[in-house]
Amino acid sequence: MIRFAVIGHLAHTAGGFSLNDMPGGAGRMDILCRCVNTSLFLSHGMRRDVEVYLVLLGPPNPPKTVLFSGERVRYLSPDERSAGSLIKKALDLPAGDEFRESTPGVYVRNGGLSDLVSLYPFVLLDDSGADVRNAGDLPENYLLSDHLNLTEEETLQTGAMPAYSVGPRALHADHTITVLLNELDRRA
Amino acid sequence: MIRFAVIGHLAHTAGGFSLNDMPGGAGRMDILCRCVNTSLFLSHGMRRDVEVYLVLLGPPNPPKTVLFSGERVRYLSPDERSAGSLIKKALDLPAGDEFRESTPGVYVRNGGLSDLVSLYPFVLLDDSGADVRNAGDLPENYLLSDHLNLTEEETLQTGAMPAYSVGPRALHADHTITVLLNELDRRA
Repeated sequence: MIRFAVIGHLAHTAGGFSLNDMPGGAGRMDILCRCVNTSLFLSHGMRRDVEVYLVLLGPPNPPKTVLFSGERVRYLSPDERSAGSLIKKALDLPAGDEFRESTPGVYVRNGGLSDLVSLYPFVLLDDSGADVRNAGDLPENYLLSDHLNLTEEETLQTGAMPAYSVGPRALHADHTITVLLNELDRRA
Repeated sequence: MIRFAVIGHLAHTAGGFSLNDMPGGAGRMDILCRCVNTSLFLSHGMRRDVEVYLVLLGPPNPPKTVLFSGERVRYLSPDERSAGSLIKKALDLPAGDEFRESTPGVYVRNGGLSDLVSLYPFVLLDDSGADVRNAGDLPENYLLSDHLNLTEEETLQTGAMPAYSVGPRALHADHTITVLLNELDRRA
């Protein structure tokens, strides 16, 4: 299983945001929606072996984590509003400490980065890291940040992680995922 | 200059479509919006050496072509609605045979694929093509289709073009552009 975790530093943690203003009112939720798209969609079908964890750190109830399972997700289309709509439904569900399913293949729970990194050995995808093309065996679990740099606390949590990059230029998180999956496809 | 041309077989050719229904009512305009994003955005800035031509073939006035110039574009954000909003403004402008600027760096004209391929030596980006990683010098002008295959007439127009692919799996047009630009970045 390939796992991507994307930190949404400002991303709202209640379902009341507007699908018409995901960059503003929803705290750059648009970035997370595009990461869901690039992680899961192939031209003819879905990447069933990929999971995407959205770590939402914005108001009013942070941290929450929304999980999209490529194996089980339904009702997801490639456009941003589609992923946003499923995130809203997940955030409308009262969250506990365990993942609860809000729509098929989409889950929500309380908790953020520390809960996630204790479960899986994540590596960092960051333009300062080692080029994935020159890497030996590639790992399964990748952590990315949204448009903001990692905070001091997050840097402490991720400092010991190996870091990988996808090329010479700094890319948006969703583009980074696309290039990484292409490298994995080529090695499969 | 790197140029991408994306054929939107159903994409509307008047500005009256709703930003809330780009996959449906606007004829999969969401795909074209994502292609604008992936062609032009870097993590810190824009790809100033890229142009994106959207070939719109849907009702009511096909064909029209909307051009985004990475060098000159303004008021463009990464989210789909932002590109969609600039496309709407372009389509609201009465179009002639020459490109007219609707907002800074966005242009519209009548005409479609045949006008474009007569100007630049396009190659096809298609999963049946030769792998870009193994290619010698890469060309500058790339043609892609949206979610639909090329029509018989389009195949006649593009049949003589060299074809390139970006890897072993068939990807969405926007993801294909991301991988191709990564290859170009690495060679620059």
